[in-house]
Amino acid sequence: MKHAWEERNRPIRLERRLEFETYSATRDFLDRLGSLSEDKQRFPDISFGRTYVNITLRPLDESEGACLQADDHAFAAGVDELLD
Amino acid sequence: MKHAWEERNRPIRLERRLEFETYSATRDFLDRLGSLSEDKQRFPDISFGRTYVNITLRPLDESEGACLQADDHAFAAGVDELLD
Repeated sequence: MKHAWEERNRPIRLERRLEFETYSATRDFLDRLGSLSEDKQRFPDISFGRTYVNITLRPLDESEGACLQADDHAFAAGVDELLD
Repeated sequence: MKHAWEERNRPIRLERRLEFETYSATRDFLDRLGSLSEDKQRFPDISFGRTYVNITLRPLDESEGACLQADDHAFAAGVDELLD
């Protein structure tokens, strides 16, 4: 699980790609992620197909030049916990 | 609802962008779309955020130069019906 998120720039963001065995597993994960999003009121951009999910998390602070903060990394860690 | 899907090339595909008022409405639509996908065994690429969903539907026939067929358009029409 370590280094599973990649930090990218322009715009600064965290990205993680996940692969699943089945569509059912993909949907289960998306359901858990949806609940986490509502819980934390964080709504990352998500792309998915039958057996993959890409998550893009931008800083809560959307002003230009804003950096990723502790709460962004905490949300990413929360997503990781959904996989346990 | 007319012409809501755009046909694009390289690779040939149908695309539709939808906007919703709330995250809850977005998730409701994604749930219905997930059920339709399982029903029809068609799994389009989907991107979404808090209040939008983009759907990309490629031909079932993935061979090079393959065109969109009646069943592709039928699936797109089935997605439209989820919005009624």
